[in-house]
Amino acid sequence: MADPQLTTRVLRRLLANGLVTRAERLLARSHPADLAPMLGDLHADEVRTVVDILFRQHRAAATLRELPPEIFPQIFDALGDQRLADILTRLEIDDMLEMVEWLPEERRQPVTSRLPEEKAAELRKAERYPADSAGRAMTTRFVGLGLQMTAQQAIDRIRAVGDDTEAILYLYVVDEKGRLAGVVPIRRLVSAPPERALSELMIHDPVRCRADDDQEQAAQAVARYNLLAIPVVDEEDRLLGVITVDDVIEVITEEATEDIYNLAGLHEADRVFTTPLQSFRRRLPWMLLNLGALFVAAWVIGLFEHTLEQLVALAFFMPVVAGMGGNSGIQSLTVITRGIALGEIEFSSGLRLVAKELAVALAIGAVAGAVAAAMATLWQGSALLGGVLFVSMVVTIGVAGMLGAAVPLLLKALHQDPALGSGVIVTTVTDVVGFITFLGMGTLLIERLS
Amino acid sequence: MADPQLTTRVLRRLLANGLVTRAERLLARSHPADLAPMLGDLHADEVRTVVDILFRQHRAAATLRELPPEIFPQIFDALGDQRLADILTRLEIDDMLEMVEWLPEERRQPVTSRLPEEKAAELRKAERYPADSAGRAMTTRFVGLGLQMTAQQAIDRIRAVGDDTEAILYLYVVDEKGRLAGVVPIRRLVSAPPERALSELMIHDPVRCRADDDQEQAAQAVARYNLLAIPVVDEEDRLLGVITVDDVIEVITEEATEDIYNLAGLHEADRVFTTPLQSFRRRLPWMLLNLGALFVAAWVIGLFEHTLEQLVALAFFMPVVAGMGGNSGIQSLTVITRGIALGEIEFSSGLRLVAKELAVALAIGAVAGAVAAAMATLWQGSALLGGVLFVSMVVTIGVAGMLGAAVPLLLKALHQDPALGSGVIVTTVTDVVGFITFLGMGTLLIERLS
Repeated sequence: MADPQLTTRVLRRLLANGLVTRAERLLARSHPADLAPMLGDLHADEVRTVVDILFRQHRAAATLRELPPEIFPQIFDALGDQRLADILTRLEIDDMLEMVEWLPEERRQPVTSRLPEEKAAELRKAERYPADSAGRAMTTRFVGLGLQMTAQQAIDRIRAVGDDTEAILYLYVVDEKGRLAGVVPIRRLVSAPPERALSELMIHDPVRCRADDDQEQAAQAVARYNLLAIPVVDEEDRLLGVITVDDVIEVITEEATEDIYNLAGLHEADRVFTTPLQSFRRRLPWMLLNLGALFVAAWVIGLFEHTLEQLVALAFFMPVVAGMGGNSGIQSLTVITRGIALGEIEFSSGLRLVAKELAVALAIGAVAGAVAAAMATLWQGSALLGGVLFVSMVVTIGVAGMLGAAVPLLLKALHQDPALGSGVIVTTVTDVVGFITFLGMGTLLIERLS
Repeated sequence: MADPQLTTRVLRRLLANGLVTRAERLLARSHPADLAPMLGDLHADEVRTVVDILFRQHRAAATLRELPPEIFPQIFDALGDQRLADILTRLEIDDMLEMVEWLPEERRQPVTSRLPEEKAAELRKAERYPADSAGRAMTTRFVGLGLQMTAQQAIDRIRAVGDDTEAILYLYVVDEKGRLAGVVPIRRLVSAPPERALSELMIHDPVRCRADDDQEQAAQAVARYNLLAIPVVDEEDRLLGVITVDDVIEVITEEATEDIYNLAGLHEADRVFTTPLQSFRRRLPWMLLNLGALFVAAWVIGLFEHTLEQLVALAFFMPVVAGMGGNSGIQSLTVITRGIALGEIEFSSGLRLVAKELAVALAIGAVAGAVAAAMATLWQGSALLGGVLFVSMVVTIGVAGMLGAAVPLLLKALHQDPALGSGVIVTTVTDVVGFITFLGMGTLLIERLS
């Protein structure tokens, strides 16, 4: 694959030296998807110049829609209300909606009031769908064909629409009331005899989603059934729009990021290109929550002050017990939350999954515990200390594995996000269990240990 | 969206009661993608019966290709060599290749020797491409059109091929030497005047990938440029095959799973449906590696035995320092590895990213450290202890944030997987830094602390 020809550095130098025509030529040769990342690196005045050039090339909207939305704010800051409205007008409704969502409150009215009335009305209508719904993700530019049309008539209709519409990979057939009747894959249309009726060509009862369905559901259906697009209907089954596969890829990528981020307690909008201040604000609450959890663990250790005073060597192994428990918990948690996200789990088999994770963790705890016990015995010269370490590692690693499976399954059953928050619950409980087991056994056996 | 009608429970009951016709009818009405998960839940004899039914319905291959490959082994166990060869014969080459990869060593020869010679030759050819390459992911069933053809001739050609070929969303135009010359989106072909030449209709120099490119690169190009397929060429630019968007969605999903799993030290094939024994074997090495790392931390604590003996309260706060450092490291690590995976990072800006993560971590360290110091002072009645905790948390959280960014960027620069192994490096170094700072300061100030 060819690397993008134009780099931020080159572009910046051209602009700084006033070589606008040269910059224009290079910009014209670059794909919008390759230009987008550069915009994020430029200063406000450079962004303004580049967007002006792209606008003259009729590619400003196509380029901005390729940006990760987290970069929108800095682009918006560089552009005036009229220019933003011009760009919004040229976007498909789903992209327009996404951009408007990221507009700062105080600029929404000034910008949207500059939209042509038709576009403004379309926007108001789309904004009625719930956040992250299929209705907000769909494009409304699609070719709806009548049941009575022939293949040739359908092809003529597509010719009339031309290159403008992205969504003619599948052609949706509607009845006289606008209800979705079937779908004709364009390859089937092209290979059909011209006089064949669409009603004979179409696939009946195609997979569809409702406008108020979650966009993730729509994306999963496209992925599951290997579709190129999914039609979106209202409660009367009337065809409202289409979600195409490029948007589905975006949804899948976003959801994967969310899953990874949730495990680390990160806010979705905390990305490599967010400012340090934003990242700080978004990470701090989670870190303070963790601090609270760790102080619980510290308090538990404090309960065993007297024991530690008698045998300070116990303190050496506390991180081993807690750390191994934590790792075991995170492993189970990751397998289960990913399984949930990929739709590999039905809650009916929840108990079996918890039992499996427990069994695996106990087995790992036994092996790792035995190794740790041997090392501790050699180091500290006390087989009894090794024994205490072994037992507490088996218990802690086992409990962690069980919780790593049970907590996300429980959260899912309660209709909460299974990934969010599971991590801190599992590691806190694991720490507490680990310290109580290890230091508690140490307390009981302290006479023989020290 | 309609839920699948047929459940594993219903299917199993029908089979147990010998109601094969009823089962056949229900199976015929279900989509292969909905049938696949059921197969994973059935016993060997049930799998055999269902695959026999599906085979009679000409849908066994289509159903098995929907399975997550991790389930293949248990399906293979249930089926004979001939039946497996029959199914393989009906698959596209990319799916066939994937299934053969999962065949146990001792069954490869018996199964592949039962393939028709043409299929076996295709397989041998495809197996020459490197693992996870575009060449292995591509389908070789595509319609290649000549430069001289008109729109009408192209449409006639497609009619002749019929519904068989999945890859006619884009039509690739090749010159007389078979080299990729251009691409005609089918929508453009349909809307063009019939006598227009393809050379006038086609987009020149389309995005392509080489057969030995990594399949992830190919997937990223499809996602980036919103394509429905990407052509695969050899080193002479001759068209070899096509990777379609449904395969791209699979690659993207797999890669996301890999990224999530790497952070937890999990083997890709360790899934909710793997057996406990397999999961145990795959997780143990990582856990033993972690055990080693934690013993390094334990040894560091051991160096401060004398200090701990004088002030055992220091031991209470060790998990706070190490835990907060670990969380900070994982947050930075997650942001950076995800940024790398999404192509949001160029290595040129690596230093800036490390500086940013360091700044964010230091700020969080200052706030969290101050809160922790206040709590510790109240609890232990020593402002000096609070001060020691504050300083060591700022240092540890800061170092962890910096390492969380620097380690994956370094691994990437060394062409290693940035996610794999970063976690254990970052948390081990963080633990060691945390214990040395906290207990080291405690040692220096021990006279005034105790």
